[in-house]
Formats: sequence, C-alpha cells, structure tokens
Amino acid sequence: MRKTAIILLCGIAALFLTSAVSSRSTQSSYGEDRAQIEDLEARYLFALDFRDADTYAMTFTQDGVLDYGPVITGRDAIRNFIAGMAKTDADRAAKDSSGLRPAAGRHNITNVVLKIQGNKAVGRSYWFHYSNNNDKRTAGLDSFGHYEDEMVKVDGKWLFSKRKIYNEQVAAWAAKPGNPAW
Amino acid sequence: MRKTAIILLCGIAALFLTSAVSSRSTQSSYGEDRAQIEDLEARYLFALDFRDADTYAMTFTQDGVLDYGPVITGRDAIRNFIAGMAKTDADRAAKDSSGLRPAAGRHNITNVVLKIQGNKAVGRSYWFHYSNNNDKRTAGLDSFGHYEDEMVKVDGKWLFSKRKIYNEQVAAWAAKPGNPAW
Amino acid sequence: MRKTAIILLCGIAALFLTSAVSSRSTQSSYGEDRAQIEDLEARYLFALDFRDADTYAMTFTQDGVLDYGPVITGRDAIRNFIAGMAKTDADRAAKDSSGLRPAAGRHNITNVVLKIQGNKAVGRSYWFHYSNNNDKRTAGLDSFGHYEDEMVKVDGKWLFSKRKIYNEQVAAWAAKPGNPAW
Repeated sequence: MRKTAIILLCGIAALFLTSAVSSRSTQSSYGEDRAQIEDLEARYLFALDFRDADTYAMTFTQDGVLDYGPVITGRDAIRNFIAGMAKTDADRAAKDSSGLRPAAGRHNITNVVLKIQGNKAVGRSYWFHYSNNNDKRTAGLDSFGHYEDEMVKVDGKWLFSKRKIYNEQVAAWAAKPGNPAW
Repeated sequence: MRKTAIILLCGIAALFLTSAVSSRSTQSSYGEDRAQIEDLEARYLFALDFRDADTYAMTFTQDGVLDYGPVITGRDAIRNFIAGMAKTDADRAAKDSSGLRPAAGRHNITNVVLKIQGNKAVGRSYWFHYSNNNDKRTAGLDSFGHYEDEMVKVDGKWLFSKRKIYNEQVAAWAAKPGNPAW
Repeated sequence: MRKTAIILLCGIAALFLTSAVSSRSTQSSYGEDRAQIEDLEARYLFALDFRDADTYAMTFTQDGVLDYGPVITGRDAIRNFIAGMAKTDADRAAKDSSGLRPAAGRHNITNVVLKIQGNKAVGRSYWFHYSNNNDKRTAGLDSFGHYEDEMVKVDGKWLFSKRKIYNEQVAAWAAKPGNPAW
C-alpha cells in the first residue's frame, strides 16, 4: 500500500508538472492565438509600406498565396513582387525633380474577425490606404477594401497560407454581394 | 492513516482535474475576454456594412438597445432596422442608371478601451466611415464619432446589451465635453 | 514512511495552490500583456483628443518621455503640455463667432506591432488624424505617421516610458528609410 501511495504521488506530481509546463509554453487559446495573429497582420503592413521584401515574404508560408487580383504563389515570388515595388519607388525617386521629400503611403487594417481552430485560422478584415503623394504632401484617403485570409501555425508561429485582397477601387476586385464574415 | 492518505490523494487529484478542466474551458481573463469582444466589434461592422440583418441583430442581447440618436430596443427591432437599410440600398440600385458598380461604404473601429468585470464589460471606442459613393468611385472619409458600449457574456458569448453611437456629423449627436473614457 | 507521504502530499498541495493562485493573478503571457497594452494605447488617444491632461500624463511613467519632434520629459511636463492644448482650444472657442459647434479632431491607432519581454515592451504602430475643422463640419483626413514606443510594466500596469512620434506632415519629423518594425 505504501508503494501504491508513492506511485500515485509521483503520478500526480508528474501530471502537475506537465500541466504547469504546457500551460506556460503552448499558450494555445483564442486570446493568445489572436494576439499573435494581430501582430502578424501589423508586421505584414509595416513590411509592405516600407518595402521590406524579406520581412513581408516571411509572413507567408513557404508555399503561401497572395491574391490581389493577380495571384502570386510561394515565398520567393512574393519577395520578388515587393522587391519590384521597392525598385519602382527608387526609380521614381531618382527621376523626381520636385525638390519635395519622398511621398508616404500607408495601409491600415481594422475590424479583424478571426475564427481559430487548432493550428488553422480564417480571417476577415478591412484595409484602407492613405498617402500624401501630391505636390503639397497633403494627407488623403485613396483606397479601401477587405481581406479574406487563411493562416496556419507553423513551429509555433502564425503565417499566412493565403491572403485574398478585395479592392473597391477596381470593379473586378470589389467585394461580392453578401457578408464575407459571419 | 493509509485511508486518510488515499482520501487526501483523491482529493488532490480531483482538485487538480477540476482546475485543469476549468482553465481550458472558461478561459476568463482580461486578454481572453478582450479578444472575444474585439471579434464581436468586428463582426458587428461587417454585418452592418454588408447589410446582414440577422448576424447584426445577433450581436445584441435579446433585449439589447441600439441608440444612434433614435433608440431601437430589442433584437427583432434591430434586425428590422438593418433589413430596412438593405431594402433602401436595393431600391436605390434598382433605380440607378449610371452604369457604375454599386458604391461601397465601410465603418471602422479603432482605439478600443475596455473595462471587464466578470460577465460585464463597458467599452469606449472610435468609429469612422469612408465610401466611394460618387461618380468616379473615389474613396473618401465622410463621417466619424465614438461608441459608448455595455456588453454582457451570455452562455459564454459576449453580446452588446447597449451601444450608444455619437456622431460628429450631426450637432445633436456629437460628443459631450469631457473624456468619455478613463 | 507515513510521515514522508504526508509531507509529500502537503508539498504537492502547496505547489498546486501556489500555481492556481499565480495563474489567476499574474496572467503574464503575450496575449494578456498585449491586451493591456492595446487598452493603454486607446486610453492615451481618448485622453489626448478630449484634452484630459491628468489621464494622458498617467499613461506615462513618472520620468516618461514624449518626443513628437520637441521632447517633453516627465509626467508633470507632459500634463502641462496637454493642459496647454486644452487652454488653446478654450481660448479659440471663446473668440469663435461662427455659431458652429466646436470642431472635433481624433487620433487613431492601427497596425500595432509589439515585442514583449517580461516587464518591458517595444512597440511600433501607425497613427492618423481626421477632423471636421471647417465651416461645414465636413470630415476629412488631415495627417498621419507612426509611433515608436517603449513601455514598462510598473506595479502590474503597463505605461509608456518613451513614445516617439513620426509625422509625415512635417519633413523633419517624417519616417527615416527602412522598416521601423521587424
């Protein structure tokens, strides 16, 4: 009986330790996953607007899909896409003779709806863009739309496996009728 | 003494299991509740802008109050209110002879302040609206204000029991002096 | 051996209780800390826009630094800065003979990127401002930029130890090249 008691004690202790460790390291809950995904969404936009092609590409899975009308597949192609935007900006700046500072443009995300199930998530959210790309560097809203996303948690990090971008400035890319969320 | 030890062991095991179960299912903490409420706020706005009357109504409690100047009380009345907006849109589209795609308008929420106590929450946040309702489908900001909300957790789901909307485009609905938050 | 078993039992019970208590009170995890910091960011902006100098100052540490071009150091100086803005508003309103309601202006935060390590955090985020400060009280976007923040958790509450504000409306305060986030 003493042996049984000691075995039981050890068992309970082991269970307890396992639970304590796992509750600290995995932190898997709606709140924890949503916090990580919101950070991902924000880092994605900093990388986009500041033309940081490497960081932007790393917000996608290796075979991730970026669909903004045209569809770009895979991290390398996505990296090249943003690197191309950086080059276009640099070329434009080199030719600019206005004497003005470079114009700034920024994408913003709001209204983040997230359904999370284990290591997969589906998201809906709004985006809008403003800039000061005019000869007085005056701020103005210039476009908006929404995102429809699929995300996966790979080695503890959330990444986009697919981002589809709807854009109300282009008829073919505008939202279809009906609520995209739930 | 052996019996006592075994009873103690069983007690500890029971406590341990109860705690493990409750920490997974209730997940009641500021972060978890805030995550759920942010999702509610976002789903509310998708439902509003895409005229999804059922989903919109279901973000309120059965006797929820929507106060945007006029006051609408109860889920059924709230559903009818959004259904009416959908009908107005459809009628306008039916009469439209411009050849343009339907205009889009979107409400956004930012600056979410939340005080949460058990199954009740009080919220303050900003909203703004942009649209492309013009003959070139050019994006523009058109209105803004703030929300003052009361929320309750019913059967594990957060719902609005009252949303009061302040709107800076209408003198009577503009914010009163003083910080609405804390 | 019985004594040993009882001592072991008491030890396990004590560990268990400690763990249960600490998991409820400290709630230290990325999600919990991010939720608190997002609330701080939102309360900061309500206090700013509604000229609540005391609440605004209390979002900073006692020796906190606000750098919006000029640098203001310490809670008292920060409080005086916002109180000065409130006085300017009041003076302007007293001289106003337009018959219009007071204009409203609002700062918004989006794209919140946060790195949190124990009681310290580093943040990057976007801000933009809209107002209706014209003779028709028409809403319009008027400025934007980004924040680079340092935060600390003092007595369980997150506060800004330093906020640096980049502003795209002023050449000297505009973002430097390169992604400010990661």
